[in-house]
Amino acid sequence: MDEDQIKSVTSEVLLKIKPTKETIDELDGVVASIIESVNKASSELKVDAFGKLVGSAARGTWRSGENDIDIFIMLPPDMSREELEEVGLSIAKNSASVFEERYAEHPYIRANFEGYDVDLVPCFNVDDASKIKSAVDRTPFHNDYMKCRINGLEDEVLLLKQFMGGLGIYGAELKVQGFSGYLCELLVLKYGSFQGVLLGASDWKSGQIINVEGTGTHDSKDPFLVIDPVDPTRNVAAAVSLESFSKFIDISRSFLDVPSVTYFFPIPVSPISKEALRDLLKERGTELIAIDAEIPDMIDDVLFPQLYKAEKAILRLMKRHDFKALGSGVWAGDGRALILFEMEVGKLPNIKKITGPPVTFRDRGGSFKAKHAPSPIFIEGGNYVARVPREYTNIIELLRGELDSCSLGKNLSTALRSCKILKDEDVLFEGLDLFIKGLLV
Amino acid sequence: MDEDQIKSVTSEVLLKIKPTKETIDELDGVVASIIESVNKASSELKVDAFGKLVGSAARGTWRSGENDIDIFIMLPPDMSREELEEVGLSIAKNSASVFEERYAEHPYIRANFEGYDVDLVPCFNVDDASKIKSAVDRTPFHNDYMKCRINGLEDEVLLLKQFMGGLGIYGAELKVQGFSGYLCELLVLKYGSFQGVLLGASDWKSGQIINVEGTGTHDSKDPFLVIDPVDPTRNVAAAVSLESFSKFIDISRSFLDVPSVTYFFPIPVSPISKEALRDLLKERGTELIAIDAEIPDMIDDVLFPQLYKAEKAILRLMKRHDFKALGSGVWAGDGRALILFEMEVGKLPNIKKITGPPVTFRDRGGSFKAKHAPSPIFIEGGNYVARVPREYTNIIELLRGELDSCSLGKNLSTALRSCKILKDEDVLFEGLDLFIKGLLV
Repeated sequence: MDEDQIKSVTSEVLLKIKPTKETIDELDGVVASIIESVNKASSELKVDAFGKLVGSAARGTWRSGENDIDIFIMLPPDMSREELEEVGLSIAKNSASVFEERYAEHPYIRANFEGYDVDLVPCFNVDDASKIKSAVDRTPFHNDYMKCRINGLEDEVLLLKQFMGGLGIYGAELKVQGFSGYLCELLVLKYGSFQGVLLGASDWKSGQIINVEGTGTHDSKDPFLVIDPVDPTRNVAAAVSLESFSKFIDISRSFLDVPSVTYFFPIPVSPISKEALRDLLKERGTELIAIDAEIPDMIDDVLFPQLYKAEKAILRLMKRHDFKALGSGVWAGDGRALILFEMEVGKLPNIKKITGPPVTFRDRGGSFKAKHAPSPIFIEGGNYVARVPREYTNIIELLRGELDSCSLGKNLSTALRSCKILKDEDVLFEGLDLFIKGLLV
Repeated sequence: MDEDQIKSVTSEVLLKIKPTKETIDELDGVVASIIESVNKASSELKVDAFGKLVGSAARGTWRSGENDIDIFIMLPPDMSREELEEVGLSIAKNSASVFEERYAEHPYIRANFEGYDVDLVPCFNVDDASKIKSAVDRTPFHNDYMKCRINGLEDEVLLLKQFMGGLGIYGAELKVQGFSGYLCELLVLKYGSFQGVLLGASDWKSGQIINVEGTGTHDSKDPFLVIDPVDPTRNVAAAVSLESFSKFIDISRSFLDVPSVTYFFPIPVSPISKEALRDLLKERGTELIAIDAEIPDMIDDVLFPQLYKAEKAILRLMKRHDFKALGSGVWAGDGRALILFEMEVGKLPNIKKITGPPVTFRDRGGSFKAKHAPSPIFIEGGNYVARVPREYTNIIELLRGELDSCSLGKNLSTALRSCKILKDEDVLFEGLDLFIKGLLV
């Protein structure tokens, strides 16, 4: 590990991602005016509520170019859920001019103020984290916990977030299944610096437990558990997939070994032409198969779990029919979703063997013979074996015939039922380059 | 089960296989004259020895057309092994005019007397089966045990032997791995009749134990144990493979269900042309691959175990390299041996994935990455995975490249090293029809 080299790399990265004094002042101004609007709208509606900045903007851990501001509308905890939604949304709408209504655990407003994307989120202003009435109520407590503690470590958080971003594992959303901003901050608190986090992660084990406050014992089956100081029963890393966890460990080691700015700013992938893709597949000796569907408008947190589930169901279908994928992946964009497979075995003979019970099991043997008559039945290793026609001899036929029988997720099943099945270079379109190159490593 | 139909079938079979009075008289005459020659040769050499007829000819359980006569030369048990071989062979040679010397556990003479193939086998004339000095010494005791007991059941034995023959499971030799003549006789003793044996076998279980004398307890891991009344520590069915055992059970049930003469006299297989074979393979969607070697002259009991061993070793080789055979078999004849495979997967991509240790195992992970550099390495399910070039992408290349590395049996390895590897209809030659049709069921 070359400390000087790491220092030189991180300095270069910070130059690009750390907001300037002017940007910060500008942001502070925008925030102050939004909070004023929220407070004013609250008074007008005669509600005992106020606006509160939370998230990275509140803690000085936002990166230059990030334009997201989270402002929570803190409403009295004795309101009913219905009241909160109605009153909260009214305050939000009265505070903004251009907005759209969104829905996570409960509704909120996404508005635009002077080029910033601002989420106005109504929540209950409970006086203790143990009394929260909905998941969003926890966020202000995260903010309070982190704000004072992260003081002086902001640059380290910026570096870690940018590093995670470069690896494609920044964000707890279900498409990414990576590390949230709050999780990055907790890791910096735990290990003291960006470099410290990477050093620590290099030695993480399966079942790793991180407990910043060091209190309490935990019995968890999770591969990675980070205890929330605000709510010790909650795993802040619950969204982190085994894949993201492993990738972070692996790249932490590589970075410490040979530091480079490219981890933070990956080199953009150049496009791939249809001919180049055809040549690549020929060189690999594989077939590329895509299930390509037009999909209804839905948020990524709904879409991606269903796509991943469908991908797994289709891999199981292939296995049941003796086909074998070398790799697979999902992609979505522009009202279109793709599930892709690179095939190791995509063609099979017209016949297959089914192994039955041992010959010494007379009744079961008789049923097996009766079931598979008139197919040839012989004996192998003491068991009955039937040689039967294979239902599907190539992967496209299998998908055309059996996709319906897979468990595909309720929003996707209709879309997938009328999907196209594409092969090799026909799979490609503009925008899919990066994904294809990632799949065909 | 239709008793009348079974009776009608077995009567028809017996008409064909039961020797006539004339044949029996002729055989008796030949046997008497050989024994006389043996006794005379013994006197001339001043040895206290005599000839003794054993085997099916001695017990009236030989089938018409079988021309094998076994005559044992009973020598004094106080002789040394060397003396026995020297004196025994001298007596044998002096008794015959045309002969060849052969070697099983110890040497014997195969001679021809008036069209009969006669084995003259020297053995120790011990007075109790527990005192035998070599395996052949047991045979006269088998003869003594069976001769009186099988009296009146000869026809049942003839039927069972013919039935086993029709199924290709008659004989304890290593090519067949089936039921010996003595074992057939023991089964008839146990179950009382041909039909009784089949009824019994229909319900045989794995680990079946048959104890004709009903004495003693046995702790055996053999799938099929028939206790030798002459030596209760010996399994008469030791040579019976799981395949032969299972086949006999299965066909016993089928025969009792729908009796037919064709079980005893199978319909000869018609030849298959190269075109028909090509069409058949196309219909099945498979490739047929043969390893075709010129082999040195050796007896089947040496050749076949080595061929079976080579077949298994090659199947393991295929599996290691991700190829998959739907079926396989061995054939030998005319100084030529073949190992055949019908391929389910005979072609594979140019690349493959190798799964390494979990990312959390730092040292092992580092070794894995170093070992497979510069191949692309990525993470799947928390494990390192390397994408490497596949060494062999088709089965013929694999066999050409790796056959040498298989454990092929000492007499075969040289022959197989200079073998030809044939494909599809090129595999075929006159005489292989039956075998090919059996393989491509």
